[in-house]
Amino acid sequence: MLIKEFAVIDLRVPTSDSLLGSDPFHRKPNYSAVLTRLHLENNLTGISVNFTIGAGNDWIAYAVKDLTQLVIGRSLGEFIEDPGGFHKMLLDHHQLRWMGDGMGRMIIGSIINALWDLWAKVEDKPLWKLLVDLPPQTVIDCIDWRYLRDALDPAEALEFLQQNLGSKAGREKQLHQRGPKAYSTAGWLGLSDAEIIQTIEQVKLQGLDCFKMKVGLNVQQDRERLAFIRSAIGEDSLLMLDANQIWGVKEAISHMLQLIEFRPHWIEEPTARDDVFGYQQIGAVLRGHGVGLACGEQVPSPVIFKQLLQQGVIQFCQIDATRLSGVNDVMAVILLAAKYHVPVCPHGGGIGLCNMIQHYAIWDQIAVSGNSDGQVVEYLNFLQEDVFLEPVRMHRGSYVLPSQLGWGLEMKEDFVREHAYPAGKVWQGRESSGGVTFLA
Amino acid sequence: MLIKEFAVIDLRVPTSDSLLGSDPFHRKPNYSAVLTRLHLENNLTGISVNFTIGAGNDWIAYAVKDLTQLVIGRSLGEFIEDPGGFHKMLLDHHQLRWMGDGMGRMIIGSIINALWDLWAKVEDKPLWKLLVDLPPQTVIDCIDWRYLRDALDPAEALEFLQQNLGSKAGREKQLHQRGPKAYSTAGWLGLSDAEIIQTIEQVKLQGLDCFKMKVGLNVQQDRERLAFIRSAIGEDSLLMLDANQIWGVKEAISHMLQLIEFRPHWIEEPTARDDVFGYQQIGAVLRGHGVGLACGEQVPSPVIFKQLLQQGVIQFCQIDATRLSGVNDVMAVILLAAKYHVPVCPHGGGIGLCNMIQHYAIWDQIAVSGNSDGQVVEYLNFLQEDVFLEPVRMHRGSYVLPSQLGWGLEMKEDFVREHAYPAGKVWQGRESSGGVTFLA
Repeated sequence: MLIKEFAVIDLRVPTSDSLLGSDPFHRKPNYSAVLTRLHLENNLTGISVNFTIGAGNDWIAYAVKDLTQLVIGRSLGEFIEDPGGFHKMLLDHHQLRWMGDGMGRMIIGSIINALWDLWAKVEDKPLWKLLVDLPPQTVIDCIDWRYLRDALDPAEALEFLQQNLGSKAGREKQLHQRGPKAYSTAGWLGLSDAEIIQTIEQVKLQGLDCFKMKVGLNVQQDRERLAFIRSAIGEDSLLMLDANQIWGVKEAISHMLQLIEFRPHWIEEPTARDDVFGYQQIGAVLRGHGVGLACGEQVPSPVIFKQLLQQGVIQFCQIDATRLSGVNDVMAVILLAAKYHVPVCPHGGGIGLCNMIQHYAIWDQIAVSGNSDGQVVEYLNFLQEDVFLEPVRMHRGSYVLPSQLGWGLEMKEDFVREHAYPAGKVWQGRESSGGVTFLA
Repeated sequence: MLIKEFAVIDLRVPTSDSLLGSDPFHRKPNYSAVLTRLHLENNLTGISVNFTIGAGNDWIAYAVKDLTQLVIGRSLGEFIEDPGGFHKMLLDHHQLRWMGDGMGRMIIGSIINALWDLWAKVEDKPLWKLLVDLPPQTVIDCIDWRYLRDALDPAEALEFLQQNLGSKAGREKQLHQRGPKAYSTAGWLGLSDAEIIQTIEQVKLQGLDCFKMKVGLNVQQDRERLAFIRSAIGEDSLLMLDANQIWGVKEAISHMLQLIEFRPHWIEEPTARDDVFGYQQIGAVLRGHGVGLACGEQVPSPVIFKQLLQQGVIQFCQIDATRLSGVNDVMAVILLAAKYHVPVCPHGGGIGLCNMIQHYAIWDQIAVSGNSDGQVVEYLNFLQEDVFLEPVRMHRGSYVLPSQLGWGLEMKEDFVREHAYPAGKVWQGRESSGGVTFLA
């Protein structure tokens, strides 16, 4: 089956109208996605999304279009027979490797994830089920081990995948009864107190009892909002904090020491996404106060994850669905997290992230860590019903195992048509606010 | 003076014909540049180049074109009055920050470096002279200190810039007599022994006595080539090695221990560009054998440089001209290197890199480290005479201080016309080999 055609579509939603999704750095995001569709000869379509927050979404779309030249005309079978080799062929391309991580890996991820979607559809399985059923050796062969062996040997990874073989069927049954536990962000920086209360109430109705709040204003403002949120969610709920990299190392420590009394479960991204030693210093202070470190949504490479896990720097591993170069990269990080006993708590939200990360969380909890003891998976209840044919489903605060084939990223055609940038209906008369501009 | 127009041109040279520039990963590079020109109302033109090795050059060009929207119509004075604020306005853009480092910073660097070129031209100075003459406080204000303060306090940086004020005039005079010492890469992987000898002879004629060789084949092949090169350059010449990230951590150690007898001065990029802990482990073993660690040409952020310097991991700091987001970022790294007494040995080659890094080296040696004790600056003698109106000049193995205004990146119009991709003359009939393709 040859991959014969593709479409890459720049989709943007004017979320900046409501400031939902705002944080100290990303003050007016327009949630956006590069939608990639690879069409097989037999009309099966492989889909991936790549999430951004507005400007620059077309940069990724432009590059993904260019990169699809490397897969058009090739056989899907070539990928299925050697998914690791195919991934490395893109990752170690003799010229493109110069582009580095960051956008470089995101772009490759668009292609790789659409191929995995096709593979799952060919096998008539949701993506998580494809992953769960893969023979352990196939998982090992998917991964680019070049820079990872000092932290995790492939033979060792194979061993703990094999150890889980016996319990997989039972774990799968358990997760069908209750899927991965979810948590939600209630306290966006741009929201008023009344809007936050409304968000919390909505989320509670879905059975969630863990909430995240954005911090990074001045200490007094953060303290006031935290006292307010703590009282709204109750003393028994878990409260997570997220600073979105706003602080330097020393600032992060002094700021966080003044928020300890609100009993945060974790502080997420207290400093730069790649400051492994900085995280180590911050963690050394906060651990004594029962606050864990979490990060990952902007970690640009498996090598940074390797260091954070190997050195015991983070207590929660927040893989993202579109930051690395697709399933193959994320598999490596989930295996590393299992070895170092760090719970995988994926980063969700955006457009399509929750739809994708649920597959990783399910695979982890059935076949890799093999437990559901400390993991919570981010969940946001917007851009679901309006966007996807099969939205993410919650039951009693947990994800419901998805049953549609592949990632389940099929979008409503109305949504795609109306949000295509800049030609779609929602952008008519407001194109200028969707592109590269400065805030007033 | 308003910035009124721009041009962004995708230039590619079919260097893959000769395999000059090849290494274990980048096996058939086509040296390429995104040429950015910002035109002022008064017809002054600010120029920058962004180096890549072929495919993907248009990805950067596309994004730089989009980003110029943020500077067109603005006054150059706004940049000159607050270069740090202007830099942060791009770096912390409320949506684009999501793009991350890697290409994200390279793209910003194209704009920032063209603005510095304009500033130097307005002041009638070469870029190095503009930098040397900046008041110390202005240098400090150029830098985004958010993530750097735990390693270097701005007040401390200001102090050592001020301490050098008294010696600056004398150092400048010394460097006019003999500029930064150069070294050259002779042993490209794709070259035959005869071609390597020819390269060494050429380079020696220019007075150089330090040579670099690519390693990363199997140990036996590397040993044979090293023995050959060591005998060609003589026992007294410095010999540097460059692995271009081909190894994992353990491999790097075991491979390098078998090359010790050839007395390498440094091993460059023994593993992944962002593996700070990995470098630390490699360095701990090699230091005992007198081999230093060098890296930087692909280091994607000042935060990674900070960790490498603060933790004493690298002995040679290889800033690049186009990997970070321009002069402001590179200033930060040079100041960090000075604090931790690590010599700044910039990465050159490519298209225009040597032309740019010479300014950084001169600024460092006059005004920041204030000495020329351990620095060597990469130099390659190709893509100079054919490309630039004022090529880089060597005298007795050292760079000659450039006198043209700004960066001195003015290119010959014939070169630009003929190498524009894909319309230029050299690409006619071979367009397909210039874009995204796999090696056979």
